[in-house]
Formats: sequence, C-alpha cells, structure tokens
Amino acid sequence: MTAATARLEPAVVSLPQPYLLFVGDITEPGYAKTAFGLRDWAGERCVGELACSDEAVTTGLPRMTPEEARRRGARALVIGVANPGGVISPAWIPSLVAALEAGLDLIGGMHAKLEDIRELKAVADRLGRRLIDVRKPPPGVPVATGRKRTGKRLLTVGTDCALGKKYTALAIARAFGERGLAADFRATGQTGIMIAGAGMPMDAVVSDFEAGAAELLSPDAAPDHWDVIEGQGSLFHPAYSAVSLGLLHGSQPDVIVLCHEPGRAHLLGFPNYPTPGLTEAIETHLMMGRLTNPAIRCAGLSFNTSAMTAEEAEDVMSRASRLLNLPVADPMRGGAAFDRLVEACLA
Amino acid sequence: MTAATARLEPAVVSLPQPYLLFVGDITEPGYAKTAFGLRDWAGERCVGELACSDEAVTTGLPRMTPEEARRRGARALVIGVANPGGVISPAWIPSLVAALEAGLDLIGGMHAKLEDIRELKAVADRLGRRLIDVRKPPPGVPVATGRKRTGKRLLTVGTDCALGKKYTALAIARAFGERGLAADFRATGQTGIMIAGAGMPMDAVVSDFEAGAAELLSPDAAPDHWDVIEGQGSLFHPAYSAVSLGLLHGSQPDVIVLCHEPGRAHLLGFPNYPTPGLTEAIETHLMMGRLTNPAIRCAGLSFNTSAMTAEEAEDVMSRASRLLNLPVADPMRGGAAFDRLVEACLA
Repeated sequence: MTAATARLEPAVVSLPQPYLLFVGDITEPGYAKTAFGLRDWAGERCVGELACSDEAVTTGLPRMTPEEARRRGARALVIGVANPGGVISPAWIPSLVAALEAGLDLIGGMHAKLEDIRELKAVADRLGRRLIDVRKPPPGVPVATGRKRTGKRLLTVGTDCALGKKYTALAIARAFGERGLAADFRATGQTGIMIAGAGMPMDAVVSDFEAGAAELLSPDAAPDHWDVIEGQGSLFHPAYSAVSLGLLHGSQPDVIVLCHEPGRAHLLGFPNYPTPGLTEAIETHLMMGRLTNPAIRCAGLSFNTSAMTAEEAEDVMSRASRLLNLPVADPMRGGAAFDRLVEACLA
Repeated sequence: MTAATARLEPAVVSLPQPYLLFVGDITEPGYAKTAFGLRDWAGERCVGELACSDEAVTTGLPRMTPEEARRRGARALVIGVANPGGVISPAWIPSLVAALEAGLDLIGGMHAKLEDIRELKAVADRLGRRLIDVRKPPPGVPVATGRKRTGKRLLTVGTDCALGKKYTALAIARAFGERGLAADFRATGQTGIMIAGAGMPMDAVVSDFEAGAAELLSPDAAPDHWDVIEGQGSLFHPAYSAVSLGLLHGSQPDVIVLCHEPGRAHLLGFPNYPTPGLTEAIETHLMMGRLTNPAIRCAGLSFNTSAMTAEEAEDVMSRASRLLNLPVADPMRGGAAFDRLVEACLA
C-alpha cells in the first residue's frame, strides 16, 4: 500500500465533477428522477445533458456531445435515469463508450454494475477511465468508536422510506447556507451522493461497520459547522431498521427532523405495518439517539404534502404543529412555516 | 443458474460434519475457545483433534491424523484456535494441507481468509476440496418481508457484547430438548455456526439485508417448534446496534432473555458508555421488538457470574430477581434458578 492509498483509506465515496447528465432514451420522467435531482440541487456542477434518442426526457440543460462537455470542464458522465429492473440498456452503450473516449469517467448507481459490462470495462481499462458505482462502499470502513465529535449535526429521520428525507436535508442545508452558516449536506444514498459529489452508501455497508461508516461521513468539524445528514429507512421499518439505527448512532445528531407523509396509512409495500404515530416516532428516535448524544432534540417535522392542495397541506401541517407544539413544514412549499422549522433547528 | 443452485440460494451457511478439531501449536487455552466450545456443545460431531506441536492445548478428544479422522467419518477440519491478530500461522500450513489431502474440507472463521493463502487454495482447487469461511454470508440474502412466521422463537439479547448470549442460547436450546420439545439452536456468529453446523454470520451481512438474513435463519416451523436464536451485539452499543436491531426485527421473537454481566460498569472497550440499567434494557428491547411481534415478552435474565463466588452469584441473582420480578439464572451454574428461567421461557 502506498502512502497515498493509506491516506485515502478509509474515506467516503468521492466523485469527479462537473457532470454531464445522461438521460438515455427514457421518455417517462419518473425514471429520470436522478437527473432532475442533479439539475435542481447540483445544477452549477452540471454542464449539460446527453441523450441517445430525440424522444428522451430533458432536464432543460443544454444537450451536448461528450467532447463538448469535456471542453466545458465535465469530468464524468452520470447515468441519471433508470430502467425498470435497474439494467443498463444495450442502446445506451455507444453513448457510454463515446463518453469514455471523450475523457469522461462513468458514474452509475443502478443495480447492474457498470464494470460488469464487458465492453465498458474493456474501453475504460484501455483508456484509464473509471467506472464508479456509487452504491459501493469505500474500502477500510472502521468499526465505530462512539467518540463525541466536534461540530453540529442534524439528521433527517422518517416514519417510513421514500417520503422526503433526502429532499428535507438538502433544503435545510441550503437554508443554513443562505443564513451564512457553514453547512454541508452529507449524502447517504446514491442520488444524494451524486448530488453532493461524495458520501456513504449506508445501505450497502456491512452491518458491523454501519455506525462506523456514519462516523466517517461526518468527521470532526469547527464548533459552529453543521453537517446536515440525509436519513435512510426508518426505525419502524421491518427490513431497513438496522440501516437507520446504525446511521442514528454513528451520526450522533444534535438535532433530528422527522419526515412524514400525512395520509400514508402503512409502510410502502408493507400493508401489515401501520405508519407509526408522530409522537411515538419522535420519542423513539430521541430515546435511541441519546446513546451517542444525550443532548439530541427534535426541532420539528417535515411533511411531504405533494399529494395535497395548498389548503389541505396548510390545514394538516398547522394541526400537527399545534398538537405536537413543534414547527411543521413542507420544504417543497417553503414559506414562513419552513423558515420556522429552520430557525428551530438552529435554536 | 441450475435448478440446484436456484434452490440453494438464498440459504444459510451450512458446514460439512463431523469435524476434526485443529488446535495447532496454541498453548494458551484462551486462544482455543472455539475448540473447547465445539467439544462442549458439538462433542458428538467431533471425532478427534489434530495438533502440530506436542505442547498444544488439548480438548481431551483423541489426537489423530487427518487420515484416521477421515476413516472415522470426519468431513472437515475446523480451525478451533486463533492467533493474536487472527492470522493463519505458517507453521499450520503442512497440517492443513495434509487434511485437504486426506479428504477433509477446511473450515475457518479467522480474520485472514483461508482462500487467500495461495498454497491452500492451490491444493483445494486441485483436489476439489472446499475452503469454508464461516464469516462469509451466503449469496442471495433477501430484503426482509416482515411477514409473521409460524413456530416459536426465543432470542438472547444483551446489555453489551461478549457476556454470554451464545452460551445462554445453547443452554436454553439444550434444556428445551431435554424437556422433549422440538428446538433448534440458531447460530449468528462464527463459533455458534461451527457448533450448529449451520447459521448466518449476522455481523458480516450488508445492512440493507440484515433483517432479511435473520428471517432466513429461522424459517416457518411447526407451531410448537422453538428456534433459540443466538443474539449479537447490543441495542445499547455505539458500534454494533445496527446488527442487534436487524436481528431483533428479523427474528420476531416471542421471548427474549436479557444477558448481562453484573459488575460490568461500562461497555467492553468503550469506557464512556455505561452499561444500561436492566429495566431500561428490557423495556427498550420490548418496545423495539413489538414492531415485528406485538406479543414479545421478556422471560427472564441470564447473568454471567463467572467472576464471582457461588455465594456472591446467588446473592446478586436473587436480588435482581426480586427487583425485576423475573427469573434470573447463570446457565453455567444451572440448578433450580436456571430451571425457573427455562420454565418462564415456555410459560
């Protein structure tokens, strides 16, 4: 092992930027969520988009060839779309090869691994390009120490999966930045890692090292620096609770924000598991979180009200806020409610 | 994929038996715990022991050559000793090669992998023998379903690591068997897996699949059948809580037995983490466990009193029993207290 790799291991996943976004031949916007997320949250680090069909969805960024993107500073092509099943379509291969030949690395987070595609592997090896799988944890993740770290930490937690923990963390980190605070969004899932350009794919870490991976993701920092950490899964999820607890303990958050979708009666795909009550969810997170940070507190709640009218959303959020005596906001809707939530995080 | 492998994946780790126990050249009994554990708990499936030094510790089983062991039915040589650092000593290699040549597979659970030792790999490949690492999870472990399974389950849990969760589960499974009940010890760590001949190395499973691995380990069974599951880590451990929660949720135990070492003021190796109180530990496990089994209950406590006199042990256990109104026993000491604990598990 050279000195350089000794220094790099252990480290988080780290990505070459800026990006060229690949939207392939995908026509259904729902399958291009990663590309849209990158446009919305890392737009200043995306030079353009590449399609392999005129019918493909667009992020609104300029379409360009890999050569042009390279000239404009791009260092990697990000596969920002998914097929059902997570495969890499044969129709995409010529575009991916062209990107490698233009000098770009490839970044993917699909179930199928880029390096398992022989043609891509051969071209990348020949040209010295990297095929980066953001779902692959870095080598050398240590066992957690439980040592209290300097700096401040916020973790978004949830009553279920897929209800806005990433979005909430991004919005809060941005709001902290707008208030002039030093804040980093710390990514724990594949889209978040692509947005941040670095992070830790927490659900792919071996369980013995889960809390250690979370410790690595938010190292010692200046006393007034905030790490705003993307939550994963839920303590109330029969499949993913291990991920959530390791992340909670390793993150040792000072502040949690509970994310929830009003009206979701049971966990997604688990009809026998009712969504937990909000008070129960808050209390359980605080009780478990006190192990590594006795001062943990819940600053408020983030509601995903995307299925509601503005009036319905306002009504459900203000009722919950009165009931729990905590700020409740939908970061997508922003406004005064979200400001109150952000202020409560900093209080 | 052939039909056979389709049937085998997903499956738990499964080991060839009976064993020949390898004690190497280890003179310090503390480094031969696995061998002693196998003698005590799987003695009827150990045909003898093999040493590569006359000074090596002995399990009391007859010393024999690999050829003789093979003639007596042995199918694998188990490395039942550890070096500091978990390496495989060069002095062991001739014995390990001789075992392969005699027709035995090799089973190891050390940090160093058998298959990374070129000489062993070459001989095993040439002869068609297996180099089995019990710390390696089987392929194809699924995401948990949370579905309630048939049969009864008991999980040993703990206030910390390394205080008797495996021993307690083994003793309870044996006691259930002695009462004529159908019961299986379900192993979750390397020594347990060697004892049982099968199991799931829970701490080596990727965290997204942790609860799924636990579901796989204790499948549907007859209504009056008991799986007695070896616990791992602790919900109160800053490094290993993810393992413990995934195991708790995937095991969906009807009964937990809390394992504890009286007098242990803080977690082993974590001086800033006080050992949790017993009532707090019981309540937290029940609260978290209710997610996948609302009927979960704590039948009693298992105390590791190995550092105490019989009188001290009796005193500390009877005081805790009165305080908590639950049976408290040390399975190593057995007796009426342990009988009461076993009966409470079945109540």
